[in-house]
Formats: sequence, structure tokens, C-alpha cells
Amino acid sequence: MKGRAWKFGNDIDTDAIIPGRYLILNTSEDLAKHAFEGVRPEFAKEVKKGDIVVAESNFGCGSSREHAPLALKGTGISCVIAKSFARIFFRNAINIGVPLLECPDTHLIEDKDVIEVDISTGIIKNHTKNEQYQATPLPDFVREIVDAGGLIEYTRKLIA
Amino acid sequence: MKGRAWKFGNDIDTDAIIPGRYLILNTSEDLAKHAFEGVRPEFAKEVKKGDIVVAESNFGCGSSREHAPLALKGTGISCVIAKSFARIFFRNAINIGVPLLECPDTHLIEDKDVIEVDISTGIIKNHTKNEQYQATPLPDFVREIVDAGGLIEYTRKLIA
Repeated sequence: MKGRAWKFGNDIDTDAIIPGRYLILNTSEDLAKHAFEGVRPEFAKEVKKGDIVVAESNFGCGSSREHAPLALKGTGISCVIAKSFARIFFRNAINIGVPLLECPDTHLIEDKDVIEVDISTGIIKNHTKNEQYQATPLPDFVREIVDAGGLIEYTRKLIA
Repeated sequence: MKGRAWKFGNDIDTDAIIPGRYLILNTSEDLAKHAFEGVRPEFAKEVKKGDIVVAESNFGCGSSREHAPLALKGTGISCVIAKSFARIFFRNAINIGVPLLECPDTHLIEDKDVIEVDISTGIIKNHTKNEQYQATPLPDFVREIVDAGGLIEYTRKLIA
């Protein structure tokens, strides 16, 4: 997966990811139209399938709304890379099927860098800077949930 | 005053303007280095004297910290234009000497547009789009405070 990096800093809260007044929306498609609307008004218009959200520490802090990973899923981004994630956001994102990677080097990635991510190995290639970083790969069983498209789909498959 | 528009959406809170962990800093110069750091990591590096922050409704909501307008003042921006401002932010900004303009047309301004603002008349020229908007000019006595560099300087002058 190769795409543009959309770079954020520390402590991006769920209200920045999806403003509170859109919590009345319930589908990832509808929510995605308003992703990052307050802080990056151009995001929803310009984001392309396969792009990557890159942040520093504590991504997804604040109100523990599932709408935040739902909105991200709807944008078609391939994953979120951050130095760390807020705990409940992490669980919500996995449950909904948004791949996350923890990587200590995200300060080296700048907005608009073209990066390529291998979710299974955690290897991140920065084509713009000709650099490579190592993220912590998700544990296998967590990746299976994400690959299935979230916890509900995963459980459906288990039952079937 | 002519400069680049830095475009934001609705409900930009003071924590987006200056992240909470920098409240230990007290000068506008130091705070300015971290303005919008979480949500727009490139802002502090790239902002130029005379640039203009443009937002939609309720700019400056959230915690009523004076550090937010202090940080903005330190960046050298010439003013903030929004559809509306949070009340306490508005007072703090005027007290600190950051010009604000209310304009109902900020959704027509995009990030990186080159705009020119006449604070006294409220006329905003968008050179990129060849459009013109009318903002509500600040009342004369408020503009005198801002022109003096804030309430403290204004009061000093009155006393002198």
C-alpha cells in the first residue's frame, strides 16, 4: 500500500477526527465526508484511497466515540501510524477494522510524503525521503480481525 | 495587509491553537513556536508575517486560556477572520492585541488563497479567487485597543 501521508502532531482527539455535531451520522461513508473537517478542511475532499494518516503521540484521545474510527474507515485510508494511540481509540479502531501501527519515528514523516506500508511486517518506506522505519506489527490475531474488516465480520466468519 | 490564508473549519478550540502542555510557556514568541502544532504541524514553521488565519464558526472555543491569542500574536499573523468567535476568546484576543474580524463568507476562502484585509473597513479581497467579502469592522474603541497592541499598552497610553 502506497499513499500520501497526512501528517498530524500530538494529542489529536476524536473531536478533531470527527466533530461532535456529526455524531448523528452513523455510516462510515457519511461520517467520512466530515473527517478532520474543523482542523483540516481540505482533508475529506482530497484524501485518496490508500493514503495514510500519520501522527505523533496519543492519537485518538478524548471522547471514546466509535464514530472516529468509522469516519477514518470511510475515507479509504489504508492505516493510521502514530507513536502511540489512546487506549479506547485503539480498541475501537481494531473492532471496526482500521489498521493501526505504532512507530517511534513518525516525527521524521512530513505532510505529503509518499509512504508505503507493509502492515504485516510493520516496515514503512518513505519514498519522498528515501528512508525506512520499523513499526511494531499488530499481533496476528489482531491483524486477523482488521483483515476481516472488523470484529463483527471476524466473528461472522468464525461462526460460519 | 496581504498574506496567505491558513484555513480552518468550525469549532477550533484553544487546545488546537496551543496544546495544553505548552501552557508553561508565557511569552508569545515561545508559544508561537507551537501554534496549531497538533493539528497543523507545518504551521509554525511556514507561517509568515502578515498571513491570515481563516476559520468558520466558533473559533477559540474550549478552555479560556490567554495563551491562545498570545501564541497567535507571536506568529506575526495580521488577523483572524471567522464567521464567529467564542466569547471569551474574543475578549482575550482584543486585550492582547490580535485583530479579529467576523465575516459570514469565510467558507468561500480556501487554504493558501492570497487575501488582503483592511481592518478598518472590514473589506477582504481574495486575490486568488478575485472575490471580495465584507467583514464587520471592529468598533472604533476596540480597534484602538488592538492598534495599541492590547489593553495594557492602550491603558499605558491613556495614562501617559
